[in-house]
Amino acid sequence: MSDSIRIAAPATVSNVGPGFDLMGFALEQPLDILKVKRNKQNTIRIFNESDATIPLDPFKNVSSVAIKSLLDTLQINEGFDLIFEKKINPGSGIGSSAASCTAAVYGVNQLLGKPMETESLIDSALAGEFIASGSLHADNIAPALLGGFILIRSYNPIDIIKLTYPKNLVCTLVHPDLVINTKESRKLIPEKIELNASIAQSGNIAALVAGLNTNNYALIGRSLIDKIAEPHRSKFIPGYDILRKRLSDCGVLGMNISGSGPSVFALSDNPETAAKAAKIMEDTFLENNIKSVTYVSGVSQVGTRVLD
Amino acid sequence: MSDSIRIAAPATVSNVGPGFDLMGFALEQPLDILKVKRNKQNTIRIFNESDATIPLDPFKNVSSVAIKSLLDTLQINEGFDLIFEKKINPGSGIGSSAASCTAAVYGVNQLLGKPMETESLIDSALAGEFIASGSLHADNIAPALLGGFILIRSYNPIDIIKLTYPKNLVCTLVHPDLVINTKESRKLIPEKIELNASIAQSGNIAALVAGLNTNNYALIGRSLIDKIAEPHRSKFIPGYDILRKRLSDCGVLGMNISGSGPSVFALSDNPETAAKAAKIMEDTFLENNIKSVTYVSGVSQVGTRVLD
Repeated sequence: MSDSIRIAAPATVSNVGPGFDLMGFALEQPLDILKVKRNKQNTIRIFNESDATIPLDPFKNVSSVAIKSLLDTLQINEGFDLIFEKKINPGSGIGSSAASCTAAVYGVNQLLGKPMETESLIDSALAGEFIASGSLHADNIAPALLGGFILIRSYNPIDIIKLTYPKNLVCTLVHPDLVINTKESRKLIPEKIELNASIAQSGNIAALVAGLNTNNYALIGRSLIDKIAEPHRSKFIPGYDILRKRLSDCGVLGMNISGSGPSVFALSDNPETAAKAAKIMEDTFLENNIKSVTYVSGVSQVGTRVLD
Repeated sequence: MSDSIRIAAPATVSNVGPGFDLMGFALEQPLDILKVKRNKQNTIRIFNESDATIPLDPFKNVSSVAIKSLLDTLQINEGFDLIFEKKINPGSGIGSSAASCTAAVYGVNQLLGKPMETESLIDSALAGEFIASGSLHADNIAPALLGGFILIRSYNPIDIIKLTYPKNLVCTLVHPDLVINTKESRKLIPEKIELNASIAQSGNIAALVAGLNTNNYALIGRSLIDKIAEPHRSKFIPGYDILRKRLSDCGVLGMNISGSGPSVFALSDNPETAAKAAKIMEDTFLENNIKSVTYVSGVSQVGTRVLD
């Protein structure tokens, strides 16, 4: 058995319009990379080989907290070095902490000879994600670990469903150079919502699943409506309403905020429209003097995996 | 063109667990029957040939209000006699008023030479349903008119989606001899709900659609949870919790209240379990000194239709 392994974990779009805390999908790119290595120190040590700012204190780093949870579950006491080659920036809204958590537990599970099924690693990964977001939401963790388009039916007990979806769905993603803190962003969401808003949210998430299951692109597009988070969070994304209008005019199926933002995603049924959407996103943020990075990516069937 | 026509409209189960105001399906039985006949009086007259109590005042009868709405839309001024052979009792929670509304507008549309597409009759049928329930909900009207398993994605504009579902899904329905008024029953539902309850409701309705679309019976069963109406309405159904336990033990996929009650439905994946469930329902209500009628029925692909 090797003592060292490199793991890749995909970026993920969570919430997906009406799927607040319930839906997410894995992207083909960007991918996060983490090297996991056994050490003889019986402790978890963190090394940062990327430009991203990450906590080096093992009690504050999501990956080490996730690994600690896994080792506790397995009742094993071993030491690991985590060497980060972060490609997904923390705070981007595309599952940076989720990718770090799933890569860490997946890597340690591999080095230990796979005592756990991949699906069972969810709980440990969630323990790590909790310290990043302050809430137990699996809509980044589950697709980052398992790939595909995920629905979380229930949290207690956790019930994760892999949805079927049209294979030529293309996601355009823009990460504008803005900082939104996930914990702060969650505080914007009221604790009670209007019954009518709740019913509308349910109608849209149910229709989104129906659209995904039956390759009904038009239905997918008109279901990408969020009554819970978007009205509060979009205010922190300059030019959001103009961007929505322009993307709609260019023919994307629909768009919304990725996770708690500031990243924004759009879904298209062809790569040409998706590429046009990327240009529109970049230009619209530039008009607001905000630089951005865009990605055009399919939905990844593969989640966290061994790289080499 | 004939001057008289008999129309059949199916009973319907609405809400369907997590689908409050959003989901419903048509039953193969019971069927409501309505005879629609032209008259020369330029008015709508109501005749009751059934044991059911229905309003004979055309301004208070759901069918005549629905027809009035249709005639206004078509800018036609003609008279019709409605001869009711009600087989679905008003106040049963299985779409009695919806069946009356859809039969009426479907019949008049036929007698007028089909100036409207069937799907476009929804709005007029809803105008009738409104006076029965005090709210514009289409989760009985849409399946009664169109058949099948229906999702209403949105009310404004109205967006009705026919869901695919497993063909051997069997519904057991019990109508206990209890009176629950739909308008009063709606008042039990709070105007604001906890965010967590809303998220749970969304997770279950999305999973129910995924289960229906992919013939995943277990998923259908565990998604039949309602966080909005059931906790309030089940209190008015004696023995409800015991009934739930017994039905679960007998192997049904899941159960819940049909519409605003007092009828209760259970879904099974085979007719034997569905028949056992009927016996359990009847026995449990009898223990509470309540007589009941039960039905075991497939989901009807056909909605409102010409009988003869």
